[in-house]
Amino acid sequence: MIKTPYLLFLGDAPDQLAAKVAQGIKDWRPEFAVGQFRMDGCKADMGLPDMTLEEAKAAGAKTLVIGVANRGGVISQAWKKVLVTALEEGFDLASGLHNLLQDEEDLVAVAKATGQDLHDVRVPEVDYPIANGKKRTGKRLLAVGTDCSVGKMYTALCMEKEMRERGMKASFRATGQTGILITGDGVPLDAVIADFMAGSVEYITPDNDADHWDIIEGQGSLFHVSYSGVTMALIHGGQPDALVVCHEPTRDHMRGLPDYQLPTLEAVRDMALSLAKVANPACQVVGYSINTQNMPEDEARAYCAKVEAELGLPATDPFRFGAGKLVDALDAI
Amino acid sequence: MIKTPYLLFLGDAPDQLAAKVAQGIKDWRPEFAVGQFRMDGCKADMGLPDMTLEEAKAAGAKTLVIGVANRGGVISQAWKKVLVTALEEGFDLASGLHNLLQDEEDLVAVAKATGQDLHDVRVPEVDYPIANGKKRTGKRLLAVGTDCSVGKMYTALCMEKEMRERGMKASFRATGQTGILITGDGVPLDAVIADFMAGSVEYITPDNDADHWDIIEGQGSLFHVSYSGVTMALIHGGQPDALVVCHEPTRDHMRGLPDYQLPTLEAVRDMALSLAKVANPACQVVGYSINTQNMPEDEARAYCAKVEAELGLPATDPFRFGAGKLVDALDAI
Repeated sequence: MIKTPYLLFLGDAPDQLAAKVAQGIKDWRPEFAVGQFRMDGCKADMGLPDMTLEEAKAAGAKTLVIGVANRGGVISQAWKKVLVTALEEGFDLASGLHNLLQDEEDLVAVAKATGQDLHDVRVPEVDYPIANGKKRTGKRLLAVGTDCSVGKMYTALCMEKEMRERGMKASFRATGQTGILITGDGVPLDAVIADFMAGSVEYITPDNDADHWDIIEGQGSLFHVSYSGVTMALIHGGQPDALVVCHEPTRDHMRGLPDYQLPTLEAVRDMALSLAKVANPACQVVGYSINTQNMPEDEARAYCAKVEAELGLPATDPFRFGAGKLVDALDAI
Repeated sequence: MIKTPYLLFLGDAPDQLAAKVAQGIKDWRPEFAVGQFRMDGCKADMGLPDMTLEEAKAAGAKTLVIGVANRGGVISQAWKKVLVTALEEGFDLASGLHNLLQDEEDLVAVAKATGQDLHDVRVPEVDYPIANGKKRTGKRLLAVGTDCSVGKMYTALCMEKEMRERGMKASFRATGQTGILITGDGVPLDAVIADFMAGSVEYITPDNDADHWDIIEGQGSLFHVSYSGVTMALIHGGQPDALVVCHEPTRDHMRGLPDYQLPTLEAVRDMALSLAKVANPACQVVGYSINTQNMPEDEARAYCAKVEAELGLPATDPFRFGAGKLVDALDAI
């Protein structure tokens, strides 16, 4: 568990897109973002107060989160200087970079000397149990997809936000590195050992109030042959009461698999539901989340309307048009 | 890859059952079993020549395989003495014990000094790739199950044996520790990191002759919520042309999950086939393997006949009645 709130490190980001982790935190957990730290030449701006480490400390920040991708997979000396000083000033560090903080000897040494924590969110920090399949209290929703990277995390975050605004009890449960950095907790499921995958999902979605919803970030797709085992563990470990099927309509093949066509929404609905019922016979598909970022608005609205008409359940782009419809559908459960 | 042939270490096995790994090697790869090494008080006997380390070395043995479970999860000092001497005599060591050889400082030191290898088959020895889903040459069969531990490994080994006896090209592909020790190669799939599971299955079943069959050992079950993700990775990474559904008819609940009923053979057939067709649209279910060890023979035969009649495909206990029927069914593919 990463200590909040954060100072967002934007480094020498060449553009706004390079700082998408910081953007995610700013968008979804603004209360965690005390300020931003930018180095000379930084071209990203979250619209947060620029702060020195000292100022951020005074403002209550506990962790310096690396909110930017590094260039060439190397933590530069310019960054290092800031990171070391941050540890010395009493910050923990958190990172989702491919190259790990814990592989940098100087950072490890300073962290040890200062008693601060290095969080590499690509690496599991918990010894997860093997799943026991026992029915848990509270309710759970899982986002499943026709493919990888179709908007499952955004769907879950949009729904959580809408639910909280309505006064519902809802907790986004992160299963990937960006989600973990955004919320400060979760499981990096793709890095968990096979035997413990479903158990790790049970672990992050424990017993809860009867009217509490875990909104579980999905991963991969049952139809993506590289990662379908990870999706399977979410469906059985998550024990969902509700599924939302996520889709990006403009793809012409599965991500990274040029020989594989995308499945239909019907195929994902039927397959995911059949499998989910093994762990929770009451599970229902409640709606469709359409990622329309590559469509003009009229086309996007028409596509959602078509899905609704054909499949008989709410369909919307929750990021573009709001998650209200999808949340309404939960009232029936 | 473990060097063959083996000297089978039976240690101080309290009974025959404790030496089931050695028994598996003796049963399925007798050509790998040069002899057995028994300590005082050993109650197991594979019917192999008892050999000293020196005699086994002279007979060509390359690896001392620990073919017996240890007591209390500790490698005893009595064992240690043999293991250290084996390394000094030029043997590699191979083990599927929970406590690892590589965690024993003395063994590591002697292995290093002598240049011998320590194989802990519970630990992956390869950096597996992410699955790419590309169609591979050659044919593949995967054993899937209604539950864990219903005889998937035995089914695959029985079929491989029958196929080889018929002069067919067939390779058992191990995905669990016992299978790896038996054949000297394979992937300990339950210990692989989630992202690489399907890739590891692709890795052990590469391009091959058009008339060659990989007979892939299954793991878990699509209906076992603790391990279904591992099964899923086998179905998509294995890209099977043929599935055999394995079942143990006398179970009253899923192994380790008292609240879960076993699925029907029809449910496993339909679910596994639908998912397998994502990676290989030509996949077929070719038959049913019934583990009848808890049934008298007449009952066992009647059960198999009933399955055949109801499901319209060959059904047999390949360990008890031979794998001929199941292998016959492959001729049609």
